[in-house]
Amino acid sequence: MTEILYEFPLNEKIRTYLRIEHLLNRLDHQCGHNEQWAILDFFSALFAILDIIERGDLKSDLLKDLEKHEKQLVAWAQHPSVNNDALQQLLSSVVEMSSRLMSSNKLGQSLRDDKFLSSIKQRFSIPGGSCCFDLPHMHQWLNQSLDTVQQNQQAWLNELDILQTVIELDLRMVREKANFTSCQAEAGLYQDTVENVELLRIKLPTDSPYYPTVSGHKNRFAIRFMQNDRQQNKSACQHSLKFTLATC
Amino acid sequence: MTEILYEFPLNEKIRTYLRIEHLLNRLDHQCGHNEQWAILDFFSALFAILDIIERGDLKSDLLKDLEKHEKQLVAWAQHPSVNNDALQQLLSSVVEMSSRLMSSNKLGQSLRDDKFLSSIKQRFSIPGGSCCFDLPHMHQWLNQSLDTVQQNQQAWLNELDILQTVIELDLRMVREKANFTSCQAEAGLYQDTVENVELLRIKLPTDSPYYPTVSGHKNRFAIRFMQNDRQQNKSACQHSLKFTLATC
Repeated sequence: MTEILYEFPLNEKIRTYLRIEHLLNRLDHQCGHNEQWAILDFFSALFAILDIIERGDLKSDLLKDLEKHEKQLVAWAQHPSVNNDALQQLLSSVVEMSSRLMSSNKLGQSLRDDKFLSSIKQRFSIPGGSCCFDLPHMHQWLNQSLDTVQQNQQAWLNELDILQTVIELDLRMVREKANFTSCQAEAGLYQDTVENVELLRIKLPTDSPYYPTVSGHKNRFAIRFMQNDRQQNKSACQHSLKFTLATC
Repeated sequence: MTEILYEFPLNEKIRTYLRIEHLLNRLDHQCGHNEQWAILDFFSALFAILDIIERGDLKSDLLKDLEKHEKQLVAWAQHPSVNNDALQQLLSSVVEMSSRLMSSNKLGQSLRDDKFLSSIKQRFSIPGGSCCFDLPHMHQWLNQSLDTVQQNQQAWLNELDILQTVIELDLRMVREKANFTSCQAEAGLYQDTVENVELLRIKLPTDSPYYPTVSGHKNRFAIRFMQNDRQQNKSACQHSLKFTLATC
Protein backbone atom coordinates (compact mmCIF):
# COMPACT_ATOMS: atom_id res chain seq x y z
CA MET A 1 0.00 0.00 0.00
CA THR A 2 1.48 3.34 -0.99
CA GLU A 3 1.29 6.16 1.48
CA ILE A 4 1.55 9.93 1.50
CA LEU A 5 3.97 11.40 4.00
CA TYR A 6 3.00 14.70 5.61
CA GLU A 7 5.47 16.65 7.75
CA PHE A 8 4.53 19.44 10.17
CA PRO A 9 7.12 21.49 12.07
CA LEU A 10 6.27 22.45 15.65
CA ASN A 11 8.70 25.33 15.86
CA GLU A 12 9.89 28.17 13.68
CA LYS A 13 13.39 26.79 13.22
CA ILE A 14 12.27 23.47 11.75
CA ARG A 15 9.69 25.32 9.67
CA THR A 16 12.49 27.36 8.11
CA TYR A 17 14.69 24.29 7.61
CA LEU A 18 11.89 22.44 5.83
CA ARG A 19 11.27 25.42 3.55
CA ILE A 20 14.95 25.61 2.69
CA GLU A 21 15.16 21.85 2.10
CA HIS A 22 12.13 22.08 -0.20
CA LEU A 23 13.73 24.93 -2.17
CA LEU A 24 17.14 23.23 -2.34
CA ASN A 25 15.49 20.12 -3.78
CA ARG A 26 13.82 22.33 -6.36
CA LEU A 27 17.16 23.95 -7.23
CA ASP A 28 18.88 20.59 -7.58
CA HIS A 29 16.14 19.32 -9.82
CA GLN A 30 15.92 22.38 -12.05
CA CYS A 31 19.68 22.69 -12.40
CA GLY A 32 19.79 19.56 -14.54
CA HIS A 33 17.13 20.80 -16.96
CA ASN A 34 17.89 22.92 -19.94
CA GLU A 35 14.51 24.35 -20.89
CA GLN A 36 14.04 28.06 -20.40
CA TRP A 37 11.24 27.44 -17.88
CA ALA A 38 13.35 25.21 -15.67
CA ILE A 39 16.11 27.82 -15.65
CA LEU A 40 13.67 30.60 -14.74
CA ASP A 41 12.25 28.42 -11.96
CA PHE A 42 15.82 27.80 -10.77
CA PHE A 43 16.18 31.57 -10.28
CA SER A 44 12.85 31.83 -8.47
CA ALA A 45 13.89 29.12 -6.03
CA LEU A 46 17.33 30.68 -5.55
CA PHE A 47 15.83 34.10 -4.78
CA ALA A 48 13.33 32.52 -2.37
CA ILE A 49 16.22 30.91 -0.45
CA LEU A 50 18.07 34.23 -0.33
CA ASP A 51 14.92 35.90 1.04
CA ILE A 52 14.58 33.26 3.74
CA ILE A 53 18.19 33.27 4.89
CA GLU A 54 18.22 37.06 4.98
CA ARG A 55 15.69 36.95 7.80
CA GLY A 56 16.63 35.72 11.25
CA ASP A 57 19.95 34.38 12.31
CA LEU A 58 20.10 31.10 10.48
CA LYS A 59 23.86 30.72 10.73
CA SER A 60 23.91 30.84 14.52
CA ASP A 61 20.97 28.40 14.66
CA LEU A 62 22.90 25.99 12.47
CA LEU A 63 26.06 26.37 14.58
CA LYS A 64 24.12 25.70 17.77
CA ASP A 65 22.61 22.59 16.18
CA LEU A 66 26.01 21.29 15.16
CA GLU A 67 27.33 21.86 18.66
CA LYS A 68 24.36 19.93 20.07
CA HIS A 69 24.94 17.07 17.63
CA GLU A 70 28.62 16.97 18.59
CA LYS A 71 27.81 16.67 22.30
CA GLN A 72 25.24 13.98 21.63
CA LEU A 73 27.58 11.97 19.44
CA VAL A 74 30.35 12.17 22.07
CA ALA A 75 27.87 10.91 24.68
CA TRP A 76 26.81 8.04 22.42
CA ALA A 77 30.43 7.09 21.84
CA GLN A 78 30.67 6.17 25.55
CA HIS A 79 27.98 3.56 25.06
CA PRO A 80 29.54 0.09 24.57
CA SER A 81 26.92 -1.21 22.11
CA VAL A 82 27.39 1.62 19.61
CA ASN A 83 29.17 1.06 16.30
CA ASN A 84 32.11 3.32 16.94
CA ASP A 85 33.45 3.58 13.38
CA ALA A 86 30.25 4.98 11.90
CA LEU A 87 29.87 7.28 14.87
CA GLN A 88 33.43 8.60 14.67
CA GLN A 89 32.94 9.28 10.97
CA LEU A 90 29.75 11.26 11.63
CA LEU A 91 31.42 13.09 14.51
CA SER A 92 34.36 14.18 12.41
CA SER A 93 32.04 15.35 9.64
CA VAL A 94 30.07 17.39 12.19
CA VAL A 95 33.28 18.98 13.46
CA GLU A 96 34.34 19.75 9.91
CA MET A 97 30.95 21.33 9.09
CA SER A 98 31.17 23.48 12.21
CA SER A 99 34.54 24.85 11.27
CA ARG A 100 33.52 25.44 7.64
CA LEU A 101 30.36 27.23 8.71
CA MET A 102 32.22 29.26 11.34
CA SER A 103 34.81 30.46 8.84
CA SER A 104 32.28 31.24 6.10
CA ASN A 105 30.84 34.67 5.39
CA LYS A 106 27.24 35.49 6.13
CA LEU A 107 25.17 32.72 4.48
CA GLY A 108 24.47 33.46 0.83
CA GLN A 109 26.49 36.69 0.92
CA SER A 110 28.38 35.93 -2.29
CA LEU A 111 25.06 35.31 -4.05
CA ARG A 112 23.70 38.60 -2.77
CA ASP A 113 26.86 40.29 -4.05
CA ASP A 114 26.66 38.59 -7.45
CA LYS A 115 26.02 41.37 -9.96
CA PHE A 116 24.14 39.21 -12.45
CA LEU A 117 21.81 37.78 -9.82
CA SER A 118 21.13 41.11 -8.19
CA SER A 119 20.43 42.68 -11.59
CA ILE A 120 17.58 40.23 -12.21
CA LYS A 121 16.27 39.46 -8.71
CA GLN A 122 13.86 42.35 -8.40
CA ARG A 123 12.04 41.63 -11.65
CA PHE A 124 11.24 38.10 -10.51
CA SER A 125 8.78 39.46 -7.95
CA ILE A 126 6.68 41.05 -10.72
CA PRO A 127 4.02 38.74 -12.22
CA GLY A 128 5.45 37.66 -15.58
CA GLY A 129 8.45 39.89 -14.90
CA SER A 130 11.05 37.65 -16.51
CA CYS A 131 10.15 38.60 -20.10
CA CYS A 132 12.87 39.34 -22.61
CA PHE A 133 12.10 43.09 -22.53
CA ASP A 134 12.36 43.16 -18.74
CA LEU A 135 15.75 41.52 -18.68
CA PRO A 136 17.43 41.57 -22.09
CA HIS A 137 20.82 40.68 -20.59
CA MET A 138 19.29 37.61 -18.93
CA HIS A 139 17.70 36.71 -22.27
CA GLN A 140 21.17 36.89 -23.82
CA TRP A 141 22.58 34.78 -20.98
CA LEU A 142 19.82 32.15 -21.48
CA ASN A 143 20.81 31.83 -25.13
CA GLN A 144 24.38 30.85 -24.38
CA SER A 145 25.60 27.30 -24.68
CA LEU A 146 24.01 24.96 -22.19
CA ASP A 147 27.42 24.21 -20.72
CA THR A 148 28.00 27.83 -19.77
CA VAL A 149 24.55 28.13 -18.26
CA GLN A 150 25.02 25.01 -16.18
CA GLN A 151 28.50 26.04 -15.07
CA ASN A 152 27.05 29.28 -13.76
CA GLN A 153 24.19 27.48 -12.04
CA GLN A 154 26.58 25.01 -10.46
CA ALA A 155 28.78 27.82 -9.16
CA TRP A 156 25.77 29.46 -7.52
CA LEU A 157 24.67 26.15 -6.03
CA ASN A 158 28.16 25.59 -4.64
CA GLU A 159 27.74 28.74 -2.58
CA LEU A 160 24.83 27.03 -0.82
CA ASP A 161 26.71 23.78 -0.34
CA ILE A 162 27.45 24.23 3.37
CA LEU A 163 23.85 25.29 4.01
CA GLN A 164 22.58 22.20 2.23
CA THR A 165 24.95 19.86 4.07
CA VAL A 166 24.09 21.15 7.53
CA ILE A 167 20.34 21.33 6.95
CA GLU A 168 20.34 17.79 5.54
CA LEU A 169 22.19 16.54 8.62
CA ASP A 170 19.95 18.50 10.99
CA LEU A 171 16.74 17.24 9.47
CA ARG A 172 18.09 13.69 9.30
CA MET A 173 18.93 13.80 13.01
CA VAL A 174 15.46 15.17 13.80
CA ARG A 175 13.68 12.63 11.61
CA GLU A 176 15.62 9.74 13.08
CA LYS A 177 14.60 10.69 16.62
CA ALA A 178 11.39 8.66 16.39
CA ASN A 179 9.87 5.68 14.60
CA PHE A 180 6.43 5.49 13.08
CA THR A 181 3.75 3.91 15.26
CA SER A 182 0.11 3.13 14.52
CA CYS A 183 -2.37 5.59 15.94
CA GLN A 184 -6.07 6.10 15.86
CA ALA A 185 -7.88 9.42 15.70
CA GLU A 186 -11.29 9.47 17.36
CA ALA A 187 -13.91 11.58 15.62
CA GLY A 188 -11.16 12.72 13.24
CA LEU A 189 -9.06 14.20 16.04
CA TYR A 190 -5.82 13.05 17.66
CA GLN A 191 -4.20 14.94 20.53
CA ASP A 192 -1.19 14.26 22.64
CA THR A 193 1.06 15.76 25.28
CA VAL A 194 4.73 15.27 24.52
CA GLU A 195 8.18 16.55 25.44
CA ASN A 196 10.26 18.72 23.16
CA VAL A 197 8.84 17.50 19.89
CA GLU A 198 9.99 19.48 16.85
CA LEU A 199 8.41 17.67 13.95
CA LEU A 200 5.35 15.52 13.34
CA ARG A 201 5.50 12.99 10.52
CA ILE A 202 2.16 11.54 9.50
CA LYS A 203 1.49 8.82 6.97
CA LEU A 204 -1.87 8.13 5.36
CA PRO A 205 -2.74 5.72 2.56
CA THR A 206 -2.63 7.40 -0.85
CA ASP A 207 -6.27 6.54 -1.46
CA SER A 208 -7.48 8.04 1.83
CA PRO A 209 -9.86 10.96 1.23
CA TYR A 210 -8.43 12.67 4.33
CA TYR A 211 -5.45 14.90 4.95
CA PRO A 212 -4.08 16.09 8.29
CA THR A 213 -3.90 19.61 9.65
CA VAL A 214 -1.85 20.33 12.74
CA SER A 215 -1.79 22.87 15.52
CA GLY A 216 0.48 22.78 18.52
CA HIS A 217 3.91 23.36 19.95
CA LYS A 218 6.76 21.34 21.43
CA ASN A 219 4.71 20.00 24.39
CA ARG A 220 1.25 19.55 22.96
CA PHE A 221 -0.31 19.05 19.56
CA ALA A 222 -3.61 18.25 17.88
CA ILE A 223 -4.04 16.59 14.50
CA ARG A 224 -7.38 17.22 12.85
CA PHE A 225 -8.17 15.19 9.74
CA MET A 226 -10.00 17.03 6.99
CA GLN A 227 -11.56 16.17 3.68
CA ASN A 228 -12.23 18.25 0.57
CA ASP A 229 -15.16 17.18 -1.56
CA ARG A 230 -15.26 17.48 -5.34
CA GLN A 231 -16.35 21.09 -5.05
CA GLN A 232 -13.41 21.63 -2.70
CA ASN A 233 -15.61 22.34 0.28
CA LYS A 234 -13.66 21.53 3.42
CA SER A 235 -15.17 19.31 6.09
CA ALA A 236 -13.75 17.66 9.19
CA CYS A 237 -13.55 13.88 9.41
CA GLN A 238 -16.15 12.74 11.96
CA HIS A 239 -15.26 9.09 12.52
CA SER A 240 -12.31 7.13 13.81
CA LEU A 241 -9.33 6.92 11.52
CA LYS A 242 -6.09 4.90 11.56
CA PHE A 243 -2.78 6.49 10.59
CA THR A 244 0.89 6.22 11.47
CA LEU A 245 2.76 8.92 13.33
CA ALA A 246 6.32 9.73 14.30
CA THR A 247 6.79 12.47 16.92
CA CYS A 248 10.36 13.63 16.36
CA MET B 1 24.12 31.95 -38.33
CA THR B 2 21.83 31.59 -35.34
CA GLU B 3 20.34 34.73 -33.89
CA ILE B 4 18.71 35.87 -30.69
CA LEU B 5 15.38 37.63 -31.08
CA TYR B 6 14.63 40.47 -28.65
CA GLU B 7 11.19 42.04 -28.49
CA PHE B 8 10.39 45.38 -26.85
CA PRO B 9 6.85 46.74 -26.50
CA LEU B 10 6.37 50.48 -26.99
CA ASN B 11 3.07 50.69 -25.18
CA GLU B 12 1.50 49.28 -22.05
CA LYS B 13 -1.01 47.14 -23.92
CA ILE B 14 1.56 45.18 -25.91
CA ARG B 15 3.72 44.95 -22.79
CA THR B 16 0.83 43.21 -21.01
CA TYR B 17 0.11 40.97 -24.01
CA LEU B 18 3.75 39.85 -24.17
CA ARG B 19 3.75 39.07 -20.45
CA ILE B 20 0.61 37.00 -20.82
CA GLU B 21 1.97 35.20 -23.90
CA HIS B 22 5.16 34.41 -21.96
CA LEU B 23 3.13 33.02 -19.03
CA LEU B 24 0.76 31.05 -21.27
CA ASN B 25 3.74 29.40 -22.96
CA ARG B 26 5.05 28.50 -19.50
CA LEU B 27 1.67 27.02 -18.55
CA ASP B 28 1.45 25.00 -21.75
CA HIS B 29 4.94 23.65 -21.22
CA GLN B 30 4.53 22.79 -17.54
CA CYS B 31 1.12 21.18 -18.03
CA GLY B 32 2.71 18.28 -19.89
CA HIS B 33 5.24 17.57 -17.13
CA ASN B 34 4.48 15.39 -14.18
CA GLU B 35 7.22 16.27 -11.70
CA GLN B 36 6.16 18.08 -8.57
CA TRP B 37 8.28 21.11 -9.50
CA ALA B 38 6.68 21.51 -12.91
CA ILE B 39 3.22 21.35 -11.32
CA LEU B 40 4.16 23.96 -8.70
CA ASP B 41 5.56 26.18 -11.44
CA PHE B 42 2.31 25.70 -13.36
CA PHE B 43 0.46 27.21 -10.38
CA SER B 44 2.91 30.11 -10.10
CA ALA B 45 2.37 30.96 -13.76
CA LEU B 46 -1.40 30.61 -13.46
CA PHE B 47 -1.50 32.94 -10.46
CA ALA B 48 0.73 35.45 -12.23
CA ILE B 49 -1.72 35.53 -15.16
CA LEU B 50 -4.64 36.03 -12.78
CA ASP B 51 -2.78 38.92 -11.14
CA ILE B 52 -2.15 40.54 -14.52
CA ILE B 53 -5.67 40.21 -15.87
CA GLU B 54 -7.12 41.51 -12.62
CA ARG B 55 -5.50 44.88 -13.31
CA GLY B 56 -6.73 47.14 -16.08
CA ASP B 57 -9.48 46.39 -18.52
CA LEU B 58 -7.95 43.67 -20.62
CA LYS B 59 -11.22 42.36 -21.99
CA SER B 60 -12.24 45.67 -23.52
CA ASP B 61 -8.74 46.10 -24.98
CA LEU B 62 -9.03 42.70 -26.62
CA LEU B 63 -12.53 43.46 -27.95
CA LYS B 64 -11.32 46.76 -29.43
CA ASP B 65 -8.43 44.92 -31.08
CA LEU B 66 -10.74 42.34 -32.61
CA GLU B 67 -12.99 45.09 -33.94
CA LYS B 68 -9.97 46.79 -35.50
CA HIS B 69 -8.83 43.53 -37.07
CA GLU B 70 -12.32 42.97 -38.46
CA LYS B 71 -12.40 46.39 -40.12
CA GLN B 72 -8.94 45.91 -41.57
CA LEU B 73 -9.78 42.47 -42.94
CA VAL B 74 -12.97 43.78 -44.55
CA ALA B 75 -10.93 46.58 -46.15
CA TRP B 76 -8.36 44.09 -47.44
CA ALA B 77 -11.11 41.93 -48.87
CA GLN B 78 -11.91 44.77 -51.32
CA HIS B 79 -8.44 44.49 -52.76
CA PRO B 80 -8.45 42.38 -55.98
CA SER B 81 -5.03 40.76 -55.43
CA VAL B 82 -5.85 39.33 -52.01
CA ASN B 83 -6.43 35.60 -51.49
CA ASN B 84 -10.04 35.83 -50.50
CA ASP B 85 -10.47 32.32 -49.07
CA ALA B 86 -7.75 32.65 -46.45
CA LEU B 87 -8.97 36.13 -45.61
CA GLN B 88 -12.60 35.06 -45.24
CA GLN B 89 -11.51 32.27 -42.95
CA LEU B 90 -9.55 34.64 -40.74
CA LEU B 91 -12.41 37.13 -40.79
CA SER B 92 -14.93 34.55 -39.65
CA SER B 93 -12.62 33.38 -36.88
CA VAL B 94 -12.21 37.00 -35.71
CA VAL B 95 -15.99 37.44 -35.65
CA GLU B 96 -16.36 34.20 -33.72
CA MET B 97 -13.71 35.25 -31.17
CA SER B 98 -15.46 38.59 -30.68
CA SER B 99 -18.76 36.96 -29.90
CA ARG B 100 -17.17 34.37 -27.59
CA LEU B 101 -15.26 37.06 -25.74
CA MET B 102 -18.31 39.31 -25.54
CA SER B 103 -20.48 36.57 -24.06
CA SER B 104 -17.82 35.38 -21.60
CA ASN B 105 -17.64 36.42 -17.96
CA LYS B 106 -14.89 38.65 -16.69
CA LEU B 107 -11.62 37.09 -17.87
CA GLY B 108 -10.37 34.41 -15.50
CA GLN B 109 -13.41 34.79 -13.23
CA SER B 110 -14.04 31.05 -12.98
CA LEU B 111 -10.40 30.56 -11.95
CA ARG B 112 -10.71 33.24 -9.30
CA ASP B 113 -13.87 31.50 -8.07
CA ASP B 114 -12.22 28.07 -8.03
CA LYS B 115 -12.07 27.02 -4.39
CA PHE B 116 -8.98 24.85 -4.73
CA LEU B 117 -7.00 27.54 -6.55
CA SER B 118 -8.03 30.29 -4.16
CA SER B 119 -7.15 28.11 -1.18
CA ILE B 120 -3.53 27.83 -2.35
CA LYS B 121 -2.92 31.11 -4.21
CA GLN B 122 -1.92 33.21 -1.23
CA ARG B 123 0.78 30.83 -0.02
CA PHE B 124 2.52 30.97 -3.38
CA SER B 125 3.60 34.53 -2.71
CA ILE B 126 5.56 33.45 0.39
CA PRO B 127 9.18 32.37 -0.33
CA GLY B 128 9.10 28.56 -0.21
CA GLY B 129 5.42 28.78 0.73
CA SER B 130 4.32 25.68 -1.17
CA CYS B 131 5.65 23.20 1.40
CA CYS B 132 3.53 20.24 2.48
CA PHE B 133 2.81 21.81 5.89
CA ASP B 134 1.63 25.04 4.28
CA LEU B 135 -0.81 23.30 2.00
CA PRO B 136 -1.51 19.73 3.10
CA HIS B 137 -4.57 19.47 0.84
CA MET B 138 -2.47 20.49 -2.17
CA HIS B 139 0.11 17.90 -1.12
CA GLN B 140 -2.69 15.33 -1.16
CA TRP B 141 -3.86 16.57 -4.57
CA LEU B 142 -0.29 16.32 -5.95
CA ASN B 143 -0.18 12.67 -4.90
CA GLN B 144 -3.21 11.66 -6.94
CA SER B 145 -2.88 9.80 -10.22
CA LEU B 146 -1.19 11.80 -12.94
CA ASP B 147 -4.34 11.59 -15.07
CA THR B 148 -6.45 13.36 -12.45
CA VAL B 149 -3.81 16.05 -11.98
CA GLN B 150 -3.59 16.67 -15.72
CA GLN B 151 -7.37 16.70 -16.14
CA ASN B 152 -7.57 19.43 -13.51
CA GLN B 153 -4.76 21.38 -15.13
CA GLN B 154 -6.37 21.07 -18.54
CA ALA B 155 -9.71 22.28 -17.19
CA TRP B 156 -8.02 25.36 -15.71
CA LEU B 157 -6.17 26.00 -18.98
CA ASN B 158 -9.43 25.73 -20.92
CA GLU B 159 -10.70 28.70 -18.95
CA LEU B 160 -7.91 30.76 -20.47
CA ASP B 161 -8.50 29.42 -23.96
CA ILE B 162 -10.24 32.52 -25.32
CA LEU B 163 -7.55 34.76 -23.81
CA GLN B 164 -4.84 32.67 -25.44
CA THR B 165 -6.56 32.62 -28.84
CA VAL B 166 -7.12 36.37 -28.98
CA ILE B 167 -3.66 37.33 -27.67
CA GLU B 168 -2.02 34.96 -30.14
CA LEU B 169 -3.96 36.53 -33.01
CA ASP B 170 -3.27 40.06 -31.77
CA LEU B 171 0.45 39.52 -31.43
CA ARG B 172 0.60 37.72 -34.79
CA MET B 173 -1.12 40.68 -36.49
CA VAL B 174 1.29 43.10 -34.77
CA ARG B 175 4.36 41.03 -35.61
CA GLU B 176 3.34 40.66 -39.25
CA LYS B 177 3.05 44.42 -39.70
CA ALA B 178 6.73 44.76 -40.56
CA ASN B 179 9.63 42.80 -42.02
CA PHE B 180 13.15 42.69 -40.68
CA THR B 181 15.60 45.08 -42.37
CA SER B 182 19.32 45.51 -41.81
CA CYS B 183 20.28 48.48 -39.69
CA GLN B 184 23.42 49.96 -38.31
CA ALA B 185 23.87 51.54 -34.91
CA GLU B 186 26.50 54.30 -34.76
CA ALA B 187 28.49 54.43 -31.54
CA GLY B 188 26.20 51.71 -30.21
CA LEU B 189 23.07 53.84 -30.62
CA TYR B 190 20.20 53.67 -33.10
CA GLN B 191 17.34 56.17 -33.07
CA ASP B 192 14.39 56.66 -35.34
CA THR B 193 11.18 58.62 -35.69
CA VAL B 194 8.27 56.43 -36.68
CA GLU B 195 4.46 56.36 -36.80
CA ASN B 196 2.37 54.32 -34.43
CA VAL B 197 4.89 51.60 -33.75
CA GLU B 198 3.87 49.19 -31.00
CA LEU B 199 6.66 46.66 -30.97
CA LEU B 200 10.34 46.58 -31.84
CA ARG B 201 11.82 43.24 -32.84
CA ILE B 202 15.61 43.12 -32.87
CA LYS B 203 17.85 40.30 -33.97
CA LEU B 204 21.49 39.91 -33.06
CA PRO B 205 23.86 37.02 -33.76
CA THR B 206 23.97 34.57 -30.86
CA ASP B 207 27.71 35.12 -30.47
CA SER B 208 27.44 38.91 -30.27
CA PRO B 209 28.61 40.23 -26.89
CA TYR B 210 25.94 42.94 -27.08
CA TYR B 211 22.30 43.10 -26.12
CA PRO B 212 19.81 45.87 -26.87
CA THR B 213 18.01 48.12 -24.42
CA VAL B 214 15.15 50.30 -25.63
CA SER B 215 13.49 53.51 -24.62
CA GLY B 216 10.74 55.24 -26.54
CA HIS B 217 7.09 55.40 -27.49
CA LYS B 218 4.93 54.96 -30.57
CA ASN B 219 6.54 57.86 -32.49
CA ARG B 220 10.16 57.76 -31.43
CA PHE B 221 12.57 55.23 -30.04
CA ALA B 222 16.23 54.73 -29.21
CA ILE B 223 18.06 51.41 -29.09
CA ARG B 224 21.22 51.42 -27.02
CA PHE B 225 23.46 48.36 -27.28
CA MET B 226 25.09 47.25 -24.06
CA GLN B 227 27.62 44.68 -23.00
CA ASN B 228 28.21 42.89 -19.71
CA ASP B 229 31.75 41.78 -18.99
CA ARG B 230 32.65 38.64 -17.11
CA GLN B 231 32.21 40.48 -13.81
CA GLN B 232 28.79 41.58 -15.07
CA ASN B 233 29.78 45.22 -15.19
CA LYS B 234 27.57 46.97 -17.72
CA SER B 235 29.10 49.12 -20.43
CA ALA B 236 27.66 50.77 -23.52
CA CYS B 237 28.84 49.65 -26.95
CA GLN B 238 30.95 52.47 -28.42
CA HIS B 239 31.36 51.44 -32.04
CA SER B 240 29.14 50.82 -35.04
CA LEU B 241 27.10 47.63 -34.95
CA LYS B 242 24.95 45.81 -37.52
CA PHE B 243 21.65 44.26 -36.52
CA THR B 244 18.23 43.59 -38.02
CA LEU B 245 15.11 45.37 -36.94
CA ALA B 246 11.38 45.17 -37.51
CA THR B 247 9.30 48.15 -36.35
CA CYS B 248 5.81 46.71 -36.01
